[in-house]
Amino acid sequence: MPTVSKKGKLMPQSPIRKLVPFAEKAIKSGKTIYHLNIGQPDIKTPEIALAAVKNTALDVLAYSRSEGSEQYRKKIANYYAKNDITVTHDNIIVTTGGSEALLFTFGSIMDVDDEVIIPEPFYANYNGFSTSSGVTIVPVVSKIETNFALPPIEEFEKLITPKTKAILICNPGNPTGYLYSKEEIKKLADIVKKHDLFLIADEVYREFTYDGLEHYSILQEEGLEEHAIVIDSVSKRYSMCGARIGCLVTKNKLVIETALKFAQARLSPPTLAQIASEAALETPQSYFDDVITEYVDRRNTLITELQKIEGVKVGTPKGAFYCIAELPVKNTDAFAQWLLEDFDVNGETVMVAPAAGFYSTSGVGLNQVRIAYVLNKQSLIKSVAILKEALKVYND
Amino acid sequence: MPTVSKKGKLMPQSPIRKLVPFAEKAIKSGKTIYHLNIGQPDIKTPEIALAAVKNTALDVLAYSRSEGSEQYRKKIANYYAKNDITVTHDNIIVTTGGSEALLFTFGSIMDVDDEVIIPEPFYANYNGFSTSSGVTIVPVVSKIETNFALPPIEEFEKLITPKTKAILICNPGNPTGYLYSKEEIKKLADIVKKHDLFLIADEVYREFTYDGLEHYSILQEEGLEEHAIVIDSVSKRYSMCGARIGCLVTKNKLVIETALKFAQARLSPPTLAQIASEAALETPQSYFDDVITEYVDRRNTLITELQKIEGVKVGTPKGAFYCIAELPVKNTDAFAQWLLEDFDVNGETVMVAPAAGFYSTSGVGLNQVRIAYVLNKQSLIKSVAILKEALKVYND
Repeated sequence: MPTVSKKGKLMPQSPIRKLVPFAEKAIKSGKTIYHLNIGQPDIKTPEIALAAVKNTALDVLAYSRSEGSEQYRKKIANYYAKNDITVTHDNIIVTTGGSEALLFTFGSIMDVDDEVIIPEPFYANYNGFSTSSGVTIVPVVSKIETNFALPPIEEFEKLITPKTKAILICNPGNPTGYLYSKEEIKKLADIVKKHDLFLIADEVYREFTYDGLEHYSILQEEGLEEHAIVIDSVSKRYSMCGARIGCLVTKNKLVIETALKFAQARLSPPTLAQIASEAALETPQSYFDDVITEYVDRRNTLITELQKIEGVKVGTPKGAFYCIAELPVKNTDAFAQWLLEDFDVNGETVMVAPAAGFYSTSGVGLNQVRIAYVLNKQSLIKSVAILKEALKVYND
Repeated sequence: MPTVSKKGKLMPQSPIRKLVPFAEKAIKSGKTIYHLNIGQPDIKTPEIALAAVKNTALDVLAYSRSEGSEQYRKKIANYYAKNDITVTHDNIIVTTGGSEALLFTFGSIMDVDDEVIIPEPFYANYNGFSTSSGVTIVPVVSKIETNFALPPIEEFEKLITPKTKAILICNPGNPTGYLYSKEEIKKLADIVKKHDLFLIADEVYREFTYDGLEHYSILQEEGLEEHAIVIDSVSKRYSMCGARIGCLVTKNKLVIETALKFAQARLSPPTLAQIASEAALETPQSYFDDVITEYVDRRNTLITELQKIEGVKVGTPKGAFYCIAELPVKNTDAFAQWLLEDFDVNGETVMVAPAAGFYSTSGVGLNQVRIAYVLNKQSLIKSVAILKEALKVYND
């Protein structure tokens, strides 16, 4: 019987997916689950985006250009201009979600066994993309004690080898919620220039910054033109995760030319979703203001409630809609499964994402979970109350 | 300055893409181009598919399941049942186009430097997917003299090494239009069973068979359950190329489990397009009857007109909507460029796809082009007349 590849065997499962069968069983048994585990916001998609699709006059759902329509890319460039990022449509390739932008980036700049340095904890699917690309992730640990700030730049320096091709950051961070400061970005800029590396920044949460802090894009950093590659997506910005539209942005022409060949091989990003995404660019500022207000409120609620639980340590996220919490348990994998299988308060329980899957270093983050604050305030309060009770019972 | 990967440099450009700048120049200069080069049908998308999207009640464009919604996969299984193919929804992973189904397949069953045997000429993007996966294509030549029938099975046998993991066919074939017979499929089944290989069949043109011939799927072949992987797509079936919805179908559970990990890393196939694709399954048979009648008419017109040109050799396609034609020129790359740059009949010219890019063996197919009959009959007649005149002038 023919069998699967070594690469296929190595492909990781996401830390959440392992729990899905237990969640399904819990639901079947009649339990209600509060999903603190997912990055799917409950926020409505801007009406203008869905209306554009509903009103389309298309009668042949044809391929678009592999790099995305020129009209859409010009509008994206205009969106960046409003965010003080100067790029042209030629610096942009529209992709099938941020995921594909990252895959194209990995393929364009790295060969098998090349290395990319990533501060951990990091977005778990970076593991999948690196495995499928044959690339090695070299982690540098960031810590809950410093709110997951950029590790000392010397820690990066130590890890650079002839195989290192890039440093990858997520800013604001999933799963940490940390927002890198201008100074931190400048430190990264210096080191990639010094060692001739690429700096890849996953900036899909750009709009989600709190407490008056402003996002500083690697594309704003002068002198980084040939090094900076931004991964972007409409998924979180407009609560359009299912659109599967993102983009890769760089002023490095050779990278664009190379990524375009990957884009051409898969023909075209989805046409209907491009129509929605183009229209979404007209979303009024009030939508974002409301969303940010809502997220700040949720974050404050979540953090306040979590801090009330004895033995729980949690940073204060400055962006995105996640936080990492340290729980007074040994292994959150087992705890998360127990929450679904063996625990409930009046038929209700919570689902959390065990954080070990967000680390590349084995044995780190075992007592942490990622919590997404994509539920409304009342649900968050309820969820944390359930978590508190669960910890009491679990540790009894 | 950091530079791109070896893999990125090796990524091929599609044979058509090289011509695009010349086509754009021609259009700017006022020429009209008849596009014989592309696989984008002019056939309308079934109204039922577009209506489903227009009428959607969604207010959050959320992720779907990574493997596609259960409801949609059950309906796909039902579609296969109508085509005498017995599969369940668990045998199906919904992908972002047939392209992604092939990428997941390559990733799931092959490691770097593994080999896949493909009869050439083959769909040019197989080159891109193999390069990005680090896989080596081992071509076996099929010939215009035999209408691109399956090469003698001994030719495959000769090429099998310990690195061979699969044989890949496209049936009906792009770019050949050849439809493999049941006997040919059985020969392939025997050899993959004998050597413990996978048999991958790209069956996206399943419905497009002519002259009363019936498509025989590798999924219909008994005893091939662990070997057969089908690549499918809604693109051509419903003239929905821009939807980017396809699927991977196999009864091999380990392959499904493995491919699912690749699917999870990229989160979800596009949601809007899944809505359209699910509705498209309700397309009435009359739609296909009309489309097939139209394509047969176009094919007959195209072949008849081409055969009238001295020095042109052309097979008779039995399926899909392409044919390979041998032209009385040395190099169709140069000829195709010349058609766009230096030739016109009353301001009109044609664009063809040079066939060398559909071969993996260097130097083969240099005098061939692929012609897609996705234009209406009158345009086809006009196109071939222009081609005839062009050949006269070019060879003068």
